[in-house]
Amino acid sequence: MSVVLDFSNVMTENVGTAHGLSIAEIEALLGKGREVLDDLRQKAENETLGFYKLPFQEETISEIKTYATGARKRFENYVHIGIGGSALGPIALQTSLLDSYYNLSKTPKMFFPDNVDPDWIHDLLKHIDASKTLFHVVSKSGATAETAATMLYFMKYLKDGLGENFYKNLLFTTDPVQGLLNEIARQYPIKCFRIPPNVGGRFSVLSPVGLVSAAISGIDIDALLKGAREMAEICNRDNLMENPAFLYAAIHFLYMKKNKNISVMMPYSNKLRDLADWYRQLWAESLGKRYNVKGELVETGQTPVKALGATDQHSQVQLYVEGPNDKVITFLEVGQFEHSEALDNYFPEIDEFNYLKDKTLGELLNAEKKATELALTNNERPNLTLRFDRVSAENIGAFFFLLEAATAFAGGLLEINAFDQPGVEQGKIATYALMGRKGYETKRKEILQQLEQKKTFVVS
Amino acid sequence: MSVVLDFSNVMTENVGTAHGLSIAEIEALLGKGREVLDDLRQKAENETLGFYKLPFQEETISEIKTYATGARKRFENYVHIGIGGSALGPIALQTSLLDSYYNLSKTPKMFFPDNVDPDWIHDLLKHIDASKTLFHVVSKSGATAETAATMLYFMKYLKDGLGENFYKNLLFTTDPVQGLLNEIARQYPIKCFRIPPNVGGRFSVLSPVGLVSAAISGIDIDALLKGAREMAEICNRDNLMENPAFLYAAIHFLYMKKNKNISVMMPYSNKLRDLADWYRQLWAESLGKRYNVKGELVETGQTPVKALGATDQHSQVQLYVEGPNDKVITFLEVGQFEHSEALDNYFPEIDEFNYLKDKTLGELLNAEKKATELALTNNERPNLTLRFDRVSAENIGAFFFLLEAATAFAGGLLEINAFDQPGVEQGKIATYALMGRKGYETKRKEILQQLEQKKTFVVS
Repeated sequence: MSVVLDFSNVMTENVGTAHGLSIAEIEALLGKGREVLDDLRQKAENETLGFYKLPFQEETISEIKTYATGARKRFENYVHIGIGGSALGPIALQTSLLDSYYNLSKTPKMFFPDNVDPDWIHDLLKHIDASKTLFHVVSKSGATAETAATMLYFMKYLKDGLGENFYKNLLFTTDPVQGLLNEIARQYPIKCFRIPPNVGGRFSVLSPVGLVSAAISGIDIDALLKGAREMAEICNRDNLMENPAFLYAAIHFLYMKKNKNISVMMPYSNKLRDLADWYRQLWAESLGKRYNVKGELVETGQTPVKALGATDQHSQVQLYVEGPNDKVITFLEVGQFEHSEALDNYFPEIDEFNYLKDKTLGELLNAEKKATELALTNNERPNLTLRFDRVSAENIGAFFFLLEAATAFAGGLLEINAFDQPGVEQGKIATYALMGRKGYETKRKEILQQLEQKKTFVVS
Repeated sequence: MSVVLDFSNVMTENVGTAHGLSIAEIEALLGKGREVLDDLRQKAENETLGFYKLPFQEETISEIKTYATGARKRFENYVHIGIGGSALGPIALQTSLLDSYYNLSKTPKMFFPDNVDPDWIHDLLKHIDASKTLFHVVSKSGATAETAATMLYFMKYLKDGLGENFYKNLLFTTDPVQGLLNEIARQYPIKCFRIPPNVGGRFSVLSPVGLVSAAISGIDIDALLKGAREMAEICNRDNLMENPAFLYAAIHFLYMKKNKNISVMMPYSNKLRDLADWYRQLWAESLGKRYNVKGELVETGQTPVKALGATDQHSQVQLYVEGPNDKVITFLEVGQFEHSEALDNYFPEIDEFNYLKDKTLGELLNAEKKATELALTNNERPNLTLRFDRVSAENIGAFFFLLEAATAFAGGLLEINAFDQPGVEQGKIATYALMGRKGYETKRKEILQQLEQKKTFVVS
């Protein structure tokens, strides 16, 4: 495993005094950082914070591998029914570690319909035979509206295809005891994997939530967890100036205080692209909070942005270099790509192509990264790099763990609860009310009244 | 065509006085707005600003349709080689208007490798036979490093498969006269479509840049342009309070002045998802500028963010509702989805699912949109809605034109040049230098020296 944090370009030495950080500023956080580390260690130990233990669940891993071996033989398709933390990690695993066009030639074909767009889901139905498809429903409570609705949608086709045997094509990953999926599983013999109750959705990728689909599509989940374990040790270092989770958190904390309230994650690798989507949820939902733990109004939170190098040099970099200096940019860089075919100039009369001769696409991509890094740094735009020696299961596992630990650290420094999401409740309640769910009648009246009184401004 | 702008929830009447806008504030911009409209009309007329005329190029359309009919018969695969403005629009057209899993059952299979990740591109090679593949190279200058490198990469396989007939599988879309692709096309009889010189990359989706791949995959490009033409008329309205391009620009301009420097585009539709990616380039690259037209330092520009409803309710909405009130959110809403199968509760013992019975996924998705809109509005977070009556080529064409016109308007209000991108030059030069291109030797020395002197801070 080799994932390295290079924070040279946030330091005043390289990015200048106006927008750089000094070692002294980071060191001033060491006292608070140690308190946070102690608190996190204690929570990991007394099992109130479960994600720290996920890389060490050997029994679960073995159960997943056995199940996956059977499923790969039995099914032509795998459909993952989950949303948010139940989908973003699993998707990132697939796109980073499998053939980019996996579904064109491999089985089981893997699908992740993590939205309730009826046309999108209908398109999927045209390509699968439900009776030859495993439907993996992932939800702690089973009550998540989108997940329940998607499951019920596919149930029609499962019943049509398999009749009373429909349950044989269902797999649940849910709470050990509670929730609606367990109610169903008590009635039908449906295989269930478990999400530890002390693990929140956005910290669950290394649980069965992410591991089951990974194993089914042939990803080496042992290597994934090995990488995560190695990173767990590194993120537990007492010497915080050598602890990348603390450093990542401290640097972002300091910039948030300096009004750099946008955190861009920009992989220079298509394979790593969806890691940035996973990070978006982790960072936004954990740190976007109205109140701190003392109950004071803080309205804190960096807005995470997903970008992609080199592609977004032709889309976002103009803004990053010349626009407001309100961002911290984290590059993901790959040291060695798997393929390194040298280019040739097949149009020798075009002298302007000659510089590409004998170079590889990887060299070009990494030169572009370095060039963008230079342009940002020379324009006093702070940036960091997480450098993967290569794209491997071990490194992806390490990446997940590092960012989870960094997020926990950042929550501690900000003195907020990084593990809840009170702000989504209002929307959930309003959805139930608008959908006419029993028990939400008063809320429904209230909302309809508000909508009636709303003054509308529309141009058509 | 029916794309409607609902800006109710940016008005003080609905979102409150602290974060809302008054009609008076918008009306105060009318004078300036009229100047901008006059200026844009003049530039459209004297052909310095070409995107206004693109929906009216009947001859080109007919040529594209003829070519596409032949290409659909001749080729098993289509590979689009372009980046940034040469790829984002074409991709958004495919994902919004085709079967979501088009490549699993349709031909020609459509691929858009818009990055130079060697592993990603190598994965593609495994799935196509170059001799049965049309390679469409899109670049005004032909010199774009990523585009040139990708073309040269595939050239090896074209030469291997077709020998000296390689050129028969090439198609160029480029400048009418200038540039490297024209040099090649003068040597080999390669079919060329043209990008009008007065149309910038990010405004080019309705030129052959976007229309060729659309037509080849079977999209109704006549309908697309019809929608754009209708919107062109609407965006030319003298009464600016009824002109959605002006209103979109004015609202965002006013919020930029109030430090809401993030513009989220959040389609509640998977099909419309990549429209937000296209918008990201348009908004960021056009408005992210260091200097205004008077040469004054302004460092202006909203950071555009792509989100997706309902999925990102489980990722970003916690931050949007509770975090810093620094965003303007634009929803894309679909009135009527194509599919509207009613759900059933196949687990009648689970009372908690009953509210979904007899509802459609589309009803759920739109209820979620309304719920999120309410939650944001009640928390004084300004938001707008662009409402499509349905996902259709006409409406997508209208959307493209509306946002292009709005961006031109916003540039006028900000008094910046919305049509250049000076900030990407540094990166380009550094890339050439690092790649050892002839003529960049001095720059290379300078960069290597800088890298040598850089103080590194790394944790591994």
